[in-house]
Amino acid sequence: MNYRAESLKKHAEWKGKIETKVRVPVDSRENLLVAYTPGVAEPCMAIHGDVNKSFELTRRWNTVPVITDGTAVLGLGDIGPEAGMPVMEGKCALFKAFGNVDAYPICLRTKDTEEIINTIKVMAGSFGGINLEDISAPRCFEIETRLKKELDIPVFHDDQHGTAIVTAAGLINALKLAGKKMESIKVVINGPGSAGIAIAKFLMKFGVKDITMCGLNGILWAGDETLNPAQQEIAKVTNLSRRKGLLSDAMKGADVLIGVSGPNCITKEMVSSMADNAIMFVCANPVPEINPKDALEAGAFIVGSGSSEYPNQINNVLVFPGLFRGALDVRANTVNDEMMMAAACGIASCVTDEELSPTYILPYAWDQRAHDAVAKSVADAAIATGVSKLYSNK
Amino acid sequence: MNYRAESLKKHAEWKGKIETKVRVPVDSRENLLVAYTPGVAEPCMAIHGDVNKSFELTRRWNTVPVITDGTAVLGLGDIGPEAGMPVMEGKCALFKAFGNVDAYPICLRTKDTEEIINTIKVMAGSFGGINLEDISAPRCFEIETRLKKELDIPVFHDDQHGTAIVTAAGLINALKLAGKKMESIKVVINGPGSAGIAIAKFLMKFGVKDITMCGLNGILWAGDETLNPAQQEIAKVTNLSRRKGLLSDAMKGADVLIGVSGPNCITKEMVSSMADNAIMFVCANPVPEINPKDALEAGAFIVGSGSSEYPNQINNVLVFPGLFRGALDVRANTVNDEMMMAAACGIASCVTDEELSPTYILPYAWDQRAHDAVAKSVADAAIATGVSKLYSNK
Repeated sequence: MNYRAESLKKHAEWKGKIETKVRVPVDSRENLLVAYTPGVAEPCMAIHGDVNKSFELTRRWNTVPVITDGTAVLGLGDIGPEAGMPVMEGKCALFKAFGNVDAYPICLRTKDTEEIINTIKVMAGSFGGINLEDISAPRCFEIETRLKKELDIPVFHDDQHGTAIVTAAGLINALKLAGKKMESIKVVINGPGSAGIAIAKFLMKFGVKDITMCGLNGILWAGDETLNPAQQEIAKVTNLSRRKGLLSDAMKGADVLIGVSGPNCITKEMVSSMADNAIMFVCANPVPEINPKDALEAGAFIVGSGSSEYPNQINNVLVFPGLFRGALDVRANTVNDEMMMAAACGIASCVTDEELSPTYILPYAWDQRAHDAVAKSVADAAIATGVSKLYSNK
Repeated sequence: MNYRAESLKKHAEWKGKIETKVRVPVDSRENLLVAYTPGVAEPCMAIHGDVNKSFELTRRWNTVPVITDGTAVLGLGDIGPEAGMPVMEGKCALFKAFGNVDAYPICLRTKDTEEIINTIKVMAGSFGGINLEDISAPRCFEIETRLKKELDIPVFHDDQHGTAIVTAAGLINALKLAGKKMESIKVVINGPGSAGIAIAKFLMKFGVKDITMCGLNGILWAGDETLNPAQQEIAKVTNLSRRKGLLSDAMKGADVLIGVSGPNCITKEMVSSMADNAIMFVCANPVPEINPKDALEAGAFIVGSGSSEYPNQINNVLVFPGLFRGALDVRANTVNDEMMMAAACGIASCVTDEELSPTYILPYAWDQRAHDAVAKSVADAAIATGVSKLYSNK
């Protein structure tokens, strides 16, 4: 089946993947008096007296915008805000279907960092959290960092952290099968964009010590001034032996290869040069860094990819619905590292030891148990770290 | 029944008056491939090639934000964006229930005219139209005027034009009963804010020639430099005999009194001084300019008010769902005078000559026939005036 052609046809039929639904009766005089004027003045004044009540008397508590500027949509690049809408709508549908989160797509006609930050800050009183989506690096770093600092609701850039969380979840389970530990593995990450850098930082929190980042010009090393600021920063805490060379050099003897780069940049020879029980997540979309079948033939032990056409899809759909569900349920005022680590562990825990195999390291994206597990883990972590506005960790 | 207390209780139970609903299947691998990646790349690229296709391949065509800055919410004044949310959510519920329009509440944490304009422009690619709500005068004039000029989707400030349209609809039917004509009536409008000024301008389009505006300091006259710019402008085209005086002076011999001001500013004596078959719309909320019963006792022929506790509720809920339904259906690129006049006539036409009486000049807000009539009238007017992007008037 040609999914792209089928998708275009279906989108033309659907004319939208989400809509609004009315939750209250408005079909009579009496009902209008309560849901609308004059009765509505009372909840308005209650919120005017205590703005926190906007989380109790309106849908704010469950509402998250999926916001993009259309600059890094899927693997399609800077296609513009309106063209990003089908992806954002899809995310909103998944938010509702798997997390019961009410999400609205908002596509911004600006690429200016300050204007994006300001637009989101100005709207933030309408929402319980903010999901940033498909904003290109390096602007996405500044936008997320600033919004996290300046807002008191969860802010999450899915391309960075959703990808990092599901990658870590897959790696937790893959390492069990490979009989290796986070502390002692050599990891190569190809693709020093927002996802690659977020994955590197996140794996370090799980104890990974030996990470080598690669880009189009090969291994990243501290002091290379051709790198952008975010790359220079990650270069300082990776590749501690200061190797220089190509991806093929980096991969020799590596235990784990994580690709968030482009199509067909890895050969079978490069796979064969890796350590025994090599783990490869080749997540470039729509065409992976190497065909998973070729990787297995060349000796890889476990292969995951961004596609559902192969086993072990590394899909951040497993992350965002449950993560926001958990954060909203306890009214977390941020998304911290502990919540993200809990999300990764929650996903990993959904594959039992009996089920775990080289072709099944992650639950399927449509497995509701996984989303529920993420929500519970994230909510617990938020309470434990004292960022829930509803529940105390005392 | 105490509607305000009941409303607070219900809002706490409801925890939101709208939510999102998923329109497409996302519960299997195959479905995700079509609704989400990789299939979704194709509608994205189709829109990238022709941005107009965002109206065909996403929900944009049916989506309208209800945007406020919380500065003029109901009769409550500047209560802040979060506190305005219960009203905006209520509007969104009515948009869906009566117009099948998908509306989202967006409350802005700014009162700066330029920042509001810019925020809305930056988001506009996500929407099929823009509904401005409860933004105080005179900023609302500039915001609406600029957005109408700079965007190619319908922009509508409900407090101005929704109120003007439903007032005109009521007046059309009331004049039939009173045996008077638009061209020859003397109209007094008390309350020179955004609604009052919009009503004055709109009634002139229906042929009304003799309008006197009143404010807290009495009759508005051309040249009074204590007036704000919008009031100075309307003073130039009203009160052509340049009378000065109080509301009580203006009302002497008047055929129509329209109040969009404050509570209890009209006495029975002032009503008695009006012409025979006097028509009074006393729309101040929640307490009208005079109790409708008192007005009738003092000799008024037809009395309407903002409240559903009395006959003849002048309720702009009759306008916005159908107006946007019609505009979206034909993909109008604006809301022009002809469309607004058609909306007023559409509402008026829903009361048949047999039904028409001094206590029934307007359909009820929950009468779906009225919303459907408005939608049809507005769509026809958009096509006739050449502002539909889907249908030609040739």
